[in-house]
This record gives sequence, C-alpha cells and structure tokens, in this order.
Amino acid sequence: MSENRAFIYADNAATTPLAPEALEAMETFLKEEYANASGLYSLSRKAKNALQDARESIAACIGAKASEIYFTSGGTESDNWAVKGVAFQNWERRPHIVTSKIEHHAVLNSCKALERIGCTVDYLSPDSAGRISPQSLAKAITPNTVLASVMMANNEIGTIQDIASLSQQAHSQGIVFHTDAVQAVGHIPVDVDALGVDLLSASAHKFNGSKGVGFLYIRDGIEISPFFNGGQQERGRRAGTENVAGIVGMATALRFNVEQMNQTTAKLLCIEQTFIDALRAAIPSVVINGDASNHLPGMVSLSIPGASGEGLLHILDLKGCAVSTGAACNSQSTEISHVLSAIGAPESLSKGTLRVSFGRFNEVQDAQRIAELIAKFAKIQD
Amino acid sequence: MSENRAFIYADNAATTPLAPEALEAMETFLKEEYANASGLYSLSRKAKNALQDARESIAACIGAKASEIYFTSGGTESDNWAVKGVAFQNWERRPHIVTSKIEHHAVLNSCKALERIGCTVDYLSPDSAGRISPQSLAKAITPNTVLASVMMANNEIGTIQDIASLSQQAHSQGIVFHTDAVQAVGHIPVDVDALGVDLLSASAHKFNGSKGVGFLYIRDGIEISPFFNGGQQERGRRAGTENVAGIVGMATALRFNVEQMNQTTAKLLCIEQTFIDALRAAIPSVVINGDASNHLPGMVSLSIPGASGEGLLHILDLKGCAVSTGAACNSQSTEISHVLSAIGAPESLSKGTLRVSFGRFNEVQDAQRIAELIAKFAKIQD
Repeated sequence: MSENRAFIYADNAATTPLAPEALEAMETFLKEEYANASGLYSLSRKAKNALQDARESIAACIGAKASEIYFTSGGTESDNWAVKGVAFQNWERRPHIVTSKIEHHAVLNSCKALERIGCTVDYLSPDSAGRISPQSLAKAITPNTVLASVMMANNEIGTIQDIASLSQQAHSQGIVFHTDAVQAVGHIPVDVDALGVDLLSASAHKFNGSKGVGFLYIRDGIEISPFFNGGQQERGRRAGTENVAGIVGMATALRFNVEQMNQTTAKLLCIEQTFIDALRAAIPSVVINGDASNHLPGMVSLSIPGASGEGLLHILDLKGCAVSTGAACNSQSTEISHVLSAIGAPESLSKGTLRVSFGRFNEVQDAQRIAELIAKFAKIQD
Repeated sequence: MSENRAFIYADNAATTPLAPEALEAMETFLKEEYANASGLYSLSRKAKNALQDARESIAACIGAKASEIYFTSGGTESDNWAVKGVAFQNWERRPHIVTSKIEHHAVLNSCKALERIGCTVDYLSPDSAGRISPQSLAKAITPNTVLASVMMANNEIGTIQDIASLSQQAHSQGIVFHTDAVQAVGHIPVDVDALGVDLLSASAHKFNGSKGVGFLYIRDGIEISPFFNGGQQERGRRAGTENVAGIVGMATALRFNVEQMNQTTAKLLCIEQTFIDALRAAIPSVVINGDASNHLPGMVSLSIPGASGEGLLHILDLKGCAVSTGAACNSQSTEISHVLSAIGAPESLSKGTLRVSFGRFNEVQDAQRIAELIAKFAKIQD
C-alpha cells in the first residue's frame, strides 16, 4: 500500500473491539481475585459480589430484574438454550416451534437439530425488507407449538423487527416468545417489558465486551430446561464455574454502551448516511438491503449488480479496510446468504453483496474511504 | 487475626490462579488482535493462526492430533457435549449410557436430563477407595448402550481410575468411551492413546488457564452430534465465535503445567505428605479418603469423626486459609457428598470432611499451617 493509513475496521456486526473500561474491570478478576465465585470462604466474596453487581447492572440496561439474567458463554449458547430448553421442557407434547427463515444459524440449526429427534418447526418468510408479520406467525401456530423465536435485529441486513407485535401475537395464543437480540443489545433500546419477550439472547463481544460470554434473559415464571446440566450455579439453571472476568467486562461494556447510546447512534447515522450518499453518487445501481425505516444504526448491506462481494472484500482488505460479505460470525462458507435468499434477492445481486458495519470507534472519514474504494474497484471488476 | 500472614489458598481443585504467562499471552487478543477468527480479511489472520497454534500445542500435551481438539466454554460444556452428543447421535436406538455414581454433576445431571426424555442410564458403584471396576462396566452394557463415561480423577477424593482397562472393556463391547479429565489434565500424564479414550473433557481454569474456556477431545472418526448448533466454527462441530484470548491462555497454561509436571508433582507429594503426617500425629482418628496408591498429587480428602467440615472451613477461613468441604465447583449446597456416600462413608464421617487441594503456588509451610489449624479447631469442636 502506498498510502500510510491506519487500518479501518468496519465489521462491527462480526465482533467489536473490547472497550478499555471493560478490560480494566476484567483485570482484577484475571489477576488477584481468581477465587471460584461459588466458594464458601471470604476469598470468594469479591467474585460473588461482582457477579451480583453485574447481574443487576445488566438487568437495569434491559428493563429486567436481576433474577432474570443468566450468564452464558455467548450468543450461540443463549440461542441454543432458549430453543432447546423450551423444547425439552415440553418434550412430552411433541413440541412444534415457529421461527423465521432469516434467523442466525444458532437458532436455525438448533431447530434443525431438534427436527432430527422428533420436533417440528415452521420457518416464516420475511417480506422483501426482512420483516416478519404477526399474521404469518398467527397462522403458523398449532396446538403443539411451544415457542416462537424471531430475532430482534438481523445480523446481515440490519432489519429491526416489530418484536412487541410479534410477542403479543404469540402470547395471545399462549406461546412463549424468544428473541435473539445479539445484534440489538447495547446498540438500540432494549426493554424486555416493552418488547414483551419471555426469553432474550445477548452476546458480550457484539457490544465491546469480551468473546466467550453472554447472557440469556428468562422472564420470571417461564419454564425452561437447563442447557448446561451440572452444578447449581445460576440458581440451578446454568451449570459451570462462572467466568467472572468475562461477566464483569460484559456488564461494564453494556452500561457504557447504553449510557452513550444516543450519541453513538447519532454518530453512526451520520457515518452511514455519508457512506450511502457517496455510494449512490458513484454507483447509481447500488441496492441497499433491509428496512430503510427501521434498521441497526451503522449497518449497511449493499449489493452491486455484477460485482463480486468476495472479490471486493479482498481488495478492500488489501487497501486496509475490514468488511464482510455474508453472515457475521463465520464467513468461511461462500454459499449464497440464507437471509438474502429469503428476502428474494436475485442470486446475481446476492453475490455482489457487502456488509459494512460501523461501530463507536469509526469516524465519517472511514465511510468516505470505504465508499471511495468500493466505487473504484466495483467498476474495475465490472 | 493477630498473626500477620498472607492468605493461603488450598482449594486448587475448585479453581486455580491464572498463570502470569497465560495472562500475558491473552492480553494481545484482549487488546489489539480483537478480530473475529472467522473473518476473511488479514486482520483475522493472527487470531486464526493463534487458534491453530493453540490447537496443536494442546493436542501435543495429550498425545492427540490437532484435528481432534474442539474448544468449548469449559468442563461443564465438554461433559454435556460428550454425554448428550453421543446420545443424540444415536437417538433412534433409544440410547443407554453407563456411567458411575461418583462422576461430576456435569456428567451425572446430563444423564438425568437424558433420562427425562427417554434414555436409560446405569450408574456404577465404586469400591471404598472410589475405583470403578471394568467387570462392573462389562456387566452393565446392554445392546442399546452407546456410551460409557467414567471420570479420570475424582474431584472430591482424588482417586485416579484405571481408564485404560475401562476403555478397553468398553471397546471390546463396541462402546464409545468418554472420560471427564477435568481434574487430571495439566496435573497428571494424560495420553489419549495410552488411555484409549474416544472423548475427553478438560477445563482451563483447573490448570491455571482462565475461567470460561475448555476443550473436548474427539477421536477422529467418532460420531457425535454438535451440542452448540449454529455457525461453522470448529469444523462445523461447535458453533460460536471463538474465545481467542481464553483459548490462547489455556494452551499456554497447559504447556507450562505439562513441562513443569515432574517438578510440580514432586513438590505436591512432599507438601501432601507433610500435611497428612502432621494431621495423623495430631488426630489419630483422621481418615484419608480415596485411593492412597493412585490419587491426584496435592489433593487430600480428610474426614474427622465428630467434627463439622463446614464449621472447620469457616474457622480456617477466619484464620486465612481457603479449603473446601464437598465438591469443587459449587459448595453452596450442604448436602452429603454423593461421592462419599458412594464409597460407603458413614454420614457422621462425611459431615466431618474437608478437601484440601494444594497447587503449584503452595509451599510446605502452607500444609503445616493448615494441619495445625485443623488439629487445633477440630479438637475444640469436639
């Protein structure tokens, strides 16, 4: 590279840098306060208290009670727990689940695993903006339905669902409602009562906490089998020695992100608008995927007719910019995105798709630079 | 406290302090190298390479191939995966599992959860030293048996099983063999081929790695359903964004512990002997539980007739020593230990039981001090 630029990281939907304040909070528990939080001696007291403080802080950030927060190893565990836990809790009913075609694979593949051992599942289709309608949910519910699971914000196209209407529909038919809020928590307002959800999944590393930790919100009174069987940690519902450092870091990162949310959102909307304007000016045929009126701030899924998303990703990488093609967490498969298929994007457009996800450490200049590079190299490709 | 002493930590079977060299290795991935290891761009390269290096290093420490190491969130997940994964893989056979009465709850309660949805399980009884015989395993195997699971070293009494004979017996009857080696890995020699195991669970924080990370060894060719469904991480067998820092710390800690094993073992045997000699001199009626000829170095389960283990724990805590009563990971229940019950210890003796587990940071003086305090206060209690 001839230019001497810093690397631009714009794949915040895949993972985010650990916030310095989160790391600082973690260090005490990585060093001197190493005791097992379940110990009966005084050396465990700081760890035990830190867990409780983290639980209260996280609960306050999503309008929940501390007793409703269960620490996990991340979003994938939380999603697996929610889906399988409700299914196994109701096993004798030959459980039926309703979910959507655009869920994260942690939900989709949990459903598929359950289908192999006797469950049935309906996968709802979204509209072209990625929205799931409460009417389609209503129609899919059967007498055996035990769970409806629809994600709060999509990890590929950023569409935010009307979770309140979906959960209301599920509850009117007596069904437990789960939302995978991995992309939402710490980024847009999340209030479990306003949303009306019974179960909600979150992952720390998506909001500047560390990898390997997350939580599942379980509304008091909701019956769900444990996913990790073993010791009596987490009120007997999630076994395993608590990852105290990770949990403390998660609580710190979430609190910071929630406190800064208004400013961060304003900044991200500005960055995003700059990015989209520059792209549209340079490439009039560019398609911006998802729901323009209701999407995650800073996340842009763009499709360029005739371009290769993967090719562009590698050129951008050579030029010092990290962006993604398809799904957040695992880009090793180059199959057509299940999300883009579900919203009806033609294959030619799906192949020319990039996901650029800005975060709190990005600046407007990053958007200008990435748009410039995309414009330049999409044309060359063409 | 009138004496001005440092706190003595002797609950290393519950958790261990993070090794400084492990923390140092983690820091790079908690700070600058934050990228998702599954990213397609160059920023992910260091994380990706670090995962591969960690996999190779860990494999070398247990005589496995790198392709046989699967990273998890800890021992509980590894145990849940092994037990449930083999059961679900063979679901159409109405699976039967053979395990022992003295397993960790991560195995026992996974079995109980499976029983609730249609599996059957036999729980083998140990002898009075905590040993499971291959003959009892042979007798328990039925045409529906899909898995035998016996822990390598017990977390309460330290007894090391003859895993090679047990796995040989299982294999002679065509059964997959799992061992929970959470207390063994990093502490005693573990070679998957010498042991003949198909599946082996480990947890980083038991060998001076961090909490929230572990691994499952899966012998090439063994069929097992994923436990975490979702993305394609870990060759499609364990979904979820990789906890790179935790994994790198785990590999570093394990390598260090394995390299130092001979010296550490010699030191721990000396500490342990000092401890037992001092105890026996002061309290002739003391009972040392487990298998004296084959047990984890540094772990002593002792029962004092008429004493209260819990009372002693609290007095020791006031005097600046951390030890445990029953199981490692969760001492919040004061029920009689299932392990002590299974080896036939009378209830009165079980109640007077302490587990003192020395680790690489302990010294002989720690053993002398704890023995002195136990002797003094067990008599006062009496």
